[in-house]
Amino acid sequence: MKSPDPLDATHDAGLRSCIDSANGHGEFPIQNLPLGVFSPGDGAARGGVAIGDDIVDLPALAAAGFLDAAAAHAARSTAGLAPMSSQSAEALTDELRTASLDALLALPSSARAALRAQLSRLLAYDSVRRTELLAGRGRWLHSARDCRLHRPTRVRNFTDCMASLHHVARAGRQLRPDNPVLPNLWYVPAAYHSRASSVQVSGVDVRRPCGQIPVSGGVPRFGPTQALDYEAEIALWIGGENPLGTPVPIADAGARIAGVGLLNDWSAREIQRWETQPLGPLLGKSFHTTVSPWIVTSQALQPYRTSLAPRAEGEPLPLPHLFDEQDQRLGGWLIEIEAWLHTPALRAAGRGPERLARASFRDFHWTPAQLVAHLTSNGCNLLPGDLLGSGTLSGREEREAGCLLELSQRGQQPLTLGNGEQRRWLQDGDEVILRGHCEVEGRVRIGLGECRAHVLPALVAAHG
Amino acid sequence: MKSPDPLDATHDAGLRSCIDSANGHGEFPIQNLPLGVFSPGDGAARGGVAIGDDIVDLPALAAAGFLDAAAAHAARSTAGLAPMSSQSAEALTDELRTASLDALLALPSSARAALRAQLSRLLAYDSVRRTELLAGRGRWLHSARDCRLHRPTRVRNFTDCMASLHHVARAGRQLRPDNPVLPNLWYVPAAYHSRASSVQVSGVDVRRPCGQIPVSGGVPRFGPTQALDYEAEIALWIGGENPLGTPVPIADAGARIAGVGLLNDWSAREIQRWETQPLGPLLGKSFHTTVSPWIVTSQALQPYRTSLAPRAEGEPLPLPHLFDEQDQRLGGWLIEIEAWLHTPALRAAGRGPERLARASFRDFHWTPAQLVAHLTSNGCNLLPGDLLGSGTLSGREEREAGCLLELSQRGQQPLTLGNGEQRRWLQDGDEVILRGHCEVEGRVRIGLGECRAHVLPALVAAHG
Repeated sequence: MKSPDPLDATHDAGLRSCIDSANGHGEFPIQNLPLGVFSPGDGAARGGVAIGDDIVDLPALAAAGFLDAAAAHAARSTAGLAPMSSQSAEALTDELRTASLDALLALPSSARAALRAQLSRLLAYDSVRRTELLAGRGRWLHSARDCRLHRPTRVRNFTDCMASLHHVARAGRQLRPDNPVLPNLWYVPAAYHSRASSVQVSGVDVRRPCGQIPVSGGVPRFGPTQALDYEAEIALWIGGENPLGTPVPIADAGARIAGVGLLNDWSAREIQRWETQPLGPLLGKSFHTTVSPWIVTSQALQPYRTSLAPRAEGEPLPLPHLFDEQDQRLGGWLIEIEAWLHTPALRAAGRGPERLARASFRDFHWTPAQLVAHLTSNGCNLLPGDLLGSGTLSGREEREAGCLLELSQRGQQPLTLGNGEQRRWLQDGDEVILRGHCEVEGRVRIGLGECRAHVLPALVAAHG
Repeated sequence: MKSPDPLDATHDAGLRSCIDSANGHGEFPIQNLPLGVFSPGDGAARGGVAIGDDIVDLPALAAAGFLDAAAAHAARSTAGLAPMSSQSAEALTDELRTASLDALLALPSSARAALRAQLSRLLAYDSVRRTELLAGRGRWLHSARDCRLHRPTRVRNFTDCMASLHHVARAGRQLRPDNPVLPNLWYVPAAYHSRASSVQVSGVDVRRPCGQIPVSGGVPRFGPTQALDYEAEIALWIGGENPLGTPVPIADAGARIAGVGLLNDWSAREIQRWETQPLGPLLGKSFHTTVSPWIVTSQALQPYRTSLAPRAEGEPLPLPHLFDEQDQRLGGWLIEIEAWLHTPALRAAGRGPERLARASFRDFHWTPAQLVAHLTSNGCNLLPGDLLGSGTLSGREEREAGCLLELSQRGQQPLTLGNGEQRRWLQDGDEVILRGHCEVEGRVRIGLGECRAHVLPALVAAHG
C-alpha cells in the first residue's frame, strides 16, 4: 500500500470553526468536512459539504470566488447539468440532470485533498474571509434542516461484500454447525453484484416486498415477506477508475476508497433462502438499499487508521495478491457502528429508539484494499462513484451482530425491547437507524451521519 | 399481456428500400430498422438506425427536417450531450458526453413506433424524399464500414437470467445426476445481478482473466483461467421505468422489452466454481460481457411472435403472478441463434469460422415477460436502457448447447473442429461470433447483427 497521506493542519484537534454549531458537533466538526449532494429549498441539487448544522454549497462557493483554481474546478464538478442547447436537451434525462459526486470522485484524490485544505481554512474560526463567508447565508451557506439530501453518486455499480467472517460464521452455524465457514471463504472475499437502481438515500421509506415464500409441500406461495431484516454495513465509495482488463495491485487498492458512509442492506430472508441456489441472493435484497447521504473522505479518516483485529491461531493467510504489509498494519479504521430500532409503540409512548447492536470496523476479516484488489483481480473496472457494501458488520460477541438473522437466531429467539415488545423480524412502521463514529485519543470525534428509513406495509392488491 | 401491436405497413414483406444494399440484406432490410449508437469517421457518437450496409444518423435527420415533431423529438434524444455553459462543464464526465439510447428508451414505445413508421416511409423505394435523402451521404447517411459502433445504452443495470432449463439441466446433471434441476427453479426464473461496467460492444477484445483457481489440497493458486468459456444469450433491452416499490404485472411486463440483441456472457469456469458459494458467480463473469451493437425493436419483432415450446408432461406450472394466457401464446419470438468459433489455425489456413451450435428462442422455459414480472415482483425498479441477459440459450439436443461447459462436458470431451483442432475451452486468439435471425413463412428474414470478440492472452506480470 502506498504511504497514506500524512496528518496535516485539517486534522488538528484544536481547530475550531467560525460556524458555531460545528464546534463540539460530534458528527460534522471542521475536522470532518464530508461530501454530499443536497438541494436547498426549491433549488436544484448540487454538491455540498456538511459543517455543523449547515451545508456549504460547493458550486456557489466557487462561483463567488472563495476558492483557488484547483479547488474551484473540483467544486464546480458537483453542479447539476444545466439546460443546454436545444439540439441535445432531449438527451438530458432526469437522472443526468440531477447532480452527483461522480465527476468529483473521478478526479485524482489530490483534488479532493486540495478542496478539503481550502475549506478547512475558509471555515476556520480565524478565517480571513469569515465576514464574507457568514454573509452568504441562503447563497453559499444553508441550514441543513432546510435542505433535502440526495444519493451522493449515480451508483453505476453496487457490489455487496461479506467482509466479516463473524457474520459468516454465525449465519453459517445455523445451517452447518460443524463447518460454519465454507473453505473458500478463507481465501475469497465473497461478494455479489447487487442492485444499483434501488439504492436510495437515508429517509426514503422501504416498502415491504412480496416474493416467493417457500412452503412445506414444495409449491411456494407469493406474498409479503414475513422475515424482513436489516443489515448494518459500511458503504465504501470508489474514487478513480481502472481500465477494463487492468487489475489494481493490493498496494494501490486502498487509495481507490474515496470515502465511507453507512449502508442498510434490507433483506427478506425467506425470499432470499428460496431463491439463493444456484445464483445467489437477488429479490431478497434488490427491493431497497439505504445509504447515508454523506461521504466521509479518506482524508478525514486518516487519524483513525488502524489494523484489523488479529486473525485467530491457525487461520489461513490470504494469497499474495491480497497481502500487503502496510495494509495489514493500517488498512482499517477505528469506526464503531450502531443499529437502533424505533417502533410505533415506542414512539407512541414518547420513548426514543433502542440500540440493538454495536460493532467495530476492526472486526472485519478483509480490509477495503483487499476487497478492491479482489474485485479487480480479474481486470474488472471499478468506476468513480461505484458503491461497495462491506457486508454485515458483526463482531465476536452475540450483541455485536449486525442483523436480526443473527440477533434472533433466524427468528427463533425474539429480542425483547425495553417496553416489553418483541421482535423476531421487522414490523410495519418500524424505523431502523444506523450510526457510525470515529474516535481516537487526542482527536476530535467525527461521525458518519445517519442512515435511517421506516418500513411501509406491503402492497398486496397489485398481485392479488 | 396487453394486446401486441398489430402488424402494419412497416412489416410488409413486399417493402423495398431506396438504399439498394438493404434489399435482400438478410440482416438489416427495411423491415428491421434496428437502433444503435455510432460515430462516423472522427465525429462524435450519436444514435442511428442500420439500413442495409448504411447507417442513418438520427439527430442529423431530425435537424435536416426529415421528421415530424414526435419522431424528431425521439431522434434528437439520441444525440450526445453538447459542451455547455462553463458553470457545469466540469460535471460532464466522458461517460455522460457519450451518446446513448437511454433517453429514447425512456420514451413511451409509441414514440419509437412513430419513429419507425416515418423511417420506413422515408427509406422506402418510392420515398417522396428519396433524392434529398440519398444526397445526404456524409451528413445523415453513412456507410457502416466507415463508422464505429458503441454500446447502445449506458447499461445502468445488468441482470443475467437463466431462462433455459435445458441449460440448467445439462449443467446440473454433471453435478447432480439424479436431480439436475433444483426444485425452486421450476418456480423461480433464476437470475443474478451481473457487472454493468464491463459490458462492452461487439469487437472489443476480451482479456483472459486471472483469478483464484481451486487446487487439490485446499489452498488455491492465483493465475490465468484455463477454462475460459462463452455463453450464447439473447440481450433484452428495457424500455420505460417502474417506480421503486411498484411491481410490473405480468400482463404489462412484455411491453417493457424495448428490443433484443445478442450477448456473450464470457465465463471463467474454475474461478466461478471456486467462488460461487454462497453468493453466486462474480469474478468468473465480471471481467467482460459482449453485446451486439443493434437493438432490434419489439416493433420489428412483431411478425415473429410465437409461444415457447410446450412444457413436458408433469412440469409444474408457474405461480399466478407469472402466468398470463396471452404471454403463453405469444410471449416468445422465432429467433434462432448460432455460435461460431474462429481459431488462429483456421485463420492461418484461410478457413472461415466453424459453427459450434444453434438453438431456438422457443427452447427457453421463461418468457421475457415472466423475467420482467419476476424481477420487479418485489418492487425493484427497472430503468430505461437496463440490460437483461436471457441466460445461456440451450435446446434439447446436445448440439443445441450454448456454451463449451455443455458441449465439452465440462472439458472432459473436447470438440474436434474441421481442421482437426480440439477445444475443451477457449484458447488465446480464438474469436467467438454469435449470430441471430428471425424467419417465418411469408416474411422477410431479419437479423440481430453480430456479437464477436477475440480472446487476448492474460496479463500475468501485474500479479507476479
